[in-house]
Amino acid sequence: MTLYEQYAEEIAALIRTGQLAPGDRLPSVREARARRGVSASTVFQAYQRLEREGLVHARPQSGFYVSAPLSARTGELAVTAPGGEANEVAVSELVFDVLRAARSPGIAPLGSAFPGPELFPLQKLAKAAAQGLRRLDPASIVDNLSPGNPRLREQIALRYRIDGIRLQPDEIIVTNGALEGLNAALQAVTQPGDTVVIESPAFYAALQAIERLKLKALEIRTDPEQGIDLDALEQALTRRRVAACWLMPTFQNPLGSLMPEARKRALVQLLARHQVPLIEDDVYAELYFGSQRPRPAKSYDEQGLVLHCSSFSKCLAPGYRVGWIAAGRHAQRIQRQLLMTTMAVSVAAQTALLNYLEEGGYDRHLRRLRATLMARMAAAIQAVEATFPAGTRLSRPRGGYFLWIALPAGLDAMALHRAALRHGIGVAPGQIFSPDHRFSDGLRVNCGHEGAEVLPALRRLGALARALLARDPGLEIRD
Amino acid sequence: MTLYEQYAEEIAALIRTGQLAPGDRLPSVREARARRGVSASTVFQAYQRLEREGLVHARPQSGFYVSAPLSARTGELAVTAPGGEANEVAVSELVFDVLRAARSPGIAPLGSAFPGPELFPLQKLAKAAAQGLRRLDPASIVDNLSPGNPRLREQIALRYRIDGIRLQPDEIIVTNGALEGLNAALQAVTQPGDTVVIESPAFYAALQAIERLKLKALEIRTDPEQGIDLDALEQALTRRRVAACWLMPTFQNPLGSLMPEARKRALVQLLARHQVPLIEDDVYAELYFGSQRPRPAKSYDEQGLVLHCSSFSKCLAPGYRVGWIAAGRHAQRIQRQLLMTTMAVSVAAQTALLNYLEEGGYDRHLRRLRATLMARMAAAIQAVEATFPAGTRLSRPRGGYFLWIALPAGLDAMALHRAALRHGIGVAPGQIFSPDHRFSDGLRVNCGHEGAEVLPALRRLGALARALLARDPGLEIRD
Repeated sequence: MTLYEQYAEEIAALIRTGQLAPGDRLPSVREARARRGVSASTVFQAYQRLEREGLVHARPQSGFYVSAPLSARTGELAVTAPGGEANEVAVSELVFDVLRAARSPGIAPLGSAFPGPELFPLQKLAKAAAQGLRRLDPASIVDNLSPGNPRLREQIALRYRIDGIRLQPDEIIVTNGALEGLNAALQAVTQPGDTVVIESPAFYAALQAIERLKLKALEIRTDPEQGIDLDALEQALTRRRVAACWLMPTFQNPLGSLMPEARKRALVQLLARHQVPLIEDDVYAELYFGSQRPRPAKSYDEQGLVLHCSSFSKCLAPGYRVGWIAAGRHAQRIQRQLLMTTMAVSVAAQTALLNYLEEGGYDRHLRRLRATLMARMAAAIQAVEATFPAGTRLSRPRGGYFLWIALPAGLDAMALHRAALRHGIGVAPGQIFSPDHRFSDGLRVNCGHEGAEVLPALRRLGALARALLARDPGLEIRD
Repeated sequence: MTLYEQYAEEIAALIRTGQLAPGDRLPSVREARARRGVSASTVFQAYQRLEREGLVHARPQSGFYVSAPLSARTGELAVTAPGGEANEVAVSELVFDVLRAARSPGIAPLGSAFPGPELFPLQKLAKAAAQGLRRLDPASIVDNLSPGNPRLREQIALRYRIDGIRLQPDEIIVTNGALEGLNAALQAVTQPGDTVVIESPAFYAALQAIERLKLKALEIRTDPEQGIDLDALEQALTRRRVAACWLMPTFQNPLGSLMPEARKRALVQLLARHQVPLIEDDVYAELYFGSQRPRPAKSYDEQGLVLHCSSFSKCLAPGYRVGWIAAGRHAQRIQRQLLMTTMAVSVAAQTALLNYLEEGGYDRHLRRLRATLMARMAAAIQAVEATFPAGTRLSRPRGGYFLWIALPAGLDAMALHRAALRHGIGVAPGQIFSPDHRFSDGLRVNCGHEGAEVLPALRRLGALARALLARDPGLEIRD
């Protein structure tokens, strides 16, 4: 790290830990030089970087001030209050329609599920693949069959250990992306007709899996900052048989909420009392805006009831489809299921990831990626705040790259989605995040692409929203 | 090709097409020189090569003679006669036990499902992966999502077209090995409790899939040379509701049988009359011993009822897990199912295969591979004939690398499997190829590994079989 990066990091840490509060003024350049002995240009570069990251803002003639946390300038989201019934799910068709539209060429990717592909070290991965595959011992191909390459599993376990989380390599099964692990987990612990607890709103892939396996979904109240409501969950568990919970305790998709550690521990203990397995989708955990990786619920699991799924797809190697599951007491069953269906993750993908991880550089990449995503998120929030109609509320994502926008009354997310598509913008309407298409006021916006692409699209989207709200078809085409 | 290879190829073609029959004498060196103007050493090298491939044999003082077709010197296998009831399947545990044992280090791989890994152009694939991934446009990663990379699908369709088989790229979905396609196909066309027709014996992965999806298996009489018995199949279709057939019309695993083209056409027509989907596992088709690729049943499909599955795993890129399915009228459903579960085949694997295929050289590799596998098969058959007890019968594989051995009465395949394991040899006992573990006299032997590994193991296996039959525990350890 250069000197200015170090200095910026120190200030950022003070902000993140609350020692510098919103509205506080940063030391002036003169003060900083005197106290820290750094040059004026170092201080200035550090402040500019913090500004890009959305942590501070400049006031003309006055200096730099700590900004309010992301999005605090718009109203807060309400805690969701689903109906309490377990429902059959029929959301797949809608999801496919929305995703197909968002994948079309020329459509601004605010509806996409992945951050900008230019953010990833694709050349280094190509080199790692080339080196690893050239050296590949033909006889070792068989070692890549499920549960996966032993050295890769060791590397994955090592990353958890560095963060103070104990996961044995033996417990880890390499999967074709997190999605294969999540689906296999759900299949392993349920029978058709069973009830599965989800957040509200929930990741649409969970809904699709529940629909595909003929299960019922039970939405539980969810706090947009702190995640699923444990009292509501306990009531539900007491009243009915629940076969599993599928949750994202860390940077929930779409809300971006983060369950505090104590709440995660309480969740695992509650589920253990009821002997209900937790399927934990942890794919965004490495993309934290804070100072350290949030602990997964799995780290509190003493009974092997947490099926913890993650992958490299969102943080290192999009498209390589390398994920993993640490499946506790269900590990053997899931490994066998994978052997019978996909048999292995490609030796090409496993070898590339293994060589990249063994060469080192992943943490450096992640630091850059987190800073970029946080800056993009801050800029996106500014754009929404500047252009969306009054009454719009926003999530306060603690990590990841999704922003959840609650539209003011009278504005339908599906209508805005359709209008946006006609203007070359994809978004994910709230209806796809609930079994009964309930979140008609919600929009999930992907802020993980380049500002030049995201910001004009967001501004156009804001203008469209205002036009739709005013029922003014003329306005609809104004940017 | 060198001159002697060309000459050997000509003679081989005459033998394969029946213009030279078993017992016919090849032209003497002098005759060949006179007729063809080739040197004595060219003729001699060509004949030696044909001998290595098992097509001809030398008789001292007399010359070279066309050999009987592979294994005709042992007795013929009987047509199987299953009971006619649809059965629930419980074979998975047994299969896992057998496969785990066969995968242990130091065990001769006669029980393995893959040919020797040294047979494949792994260095060229590594180079293709490196080149392709270096040039990869980040924005194109999304194009690899299911149904898969459009250029790779075009290459796959092209290979069929070259063989005179019409498959549109649009119909092809890239899958994580053929196994993912086969499983997705079965899931798409069945409901729990449904009946699925299989061959007798059947590939154990079909049995595992049937068990996993809570289906019933109906075994149909199968001719060890010509495949499933169509009269028996028609009777079954008339008598009961059948949800699907899962068959391997080309080089069936484990028998190696090949349905003649007319029979494949009749199969497709019969199933069309009853509107029953055919799941066609075609993974061994490129490994033919004859003069051309056998046509798949899919090529007779006019109603989109054939779900044709194949892969590169057995003929080009083991461990890369790149397969495909051409799923006819079920294509959209299956593509969506894949999007919801594994989402894509790794961009690393798709890119490697695409670049390898576009560079060229695949056909050259396949010609070498076929010749090697055929020679290994011939040598393995000789070893079995020389060492197994009297009354042993053998399949006559038309392609692939599996030999099916029917043991004489009184010898149990599972007992031989266990004894073999103690002697460091893995085999696949017949019991794993039937829902009711019926083929207690059968052994599937993988002859696709190097002779230095396979042949001594086969001889030891023969000795063990003789010892077990004689109930002579002392003999058991004699090699």
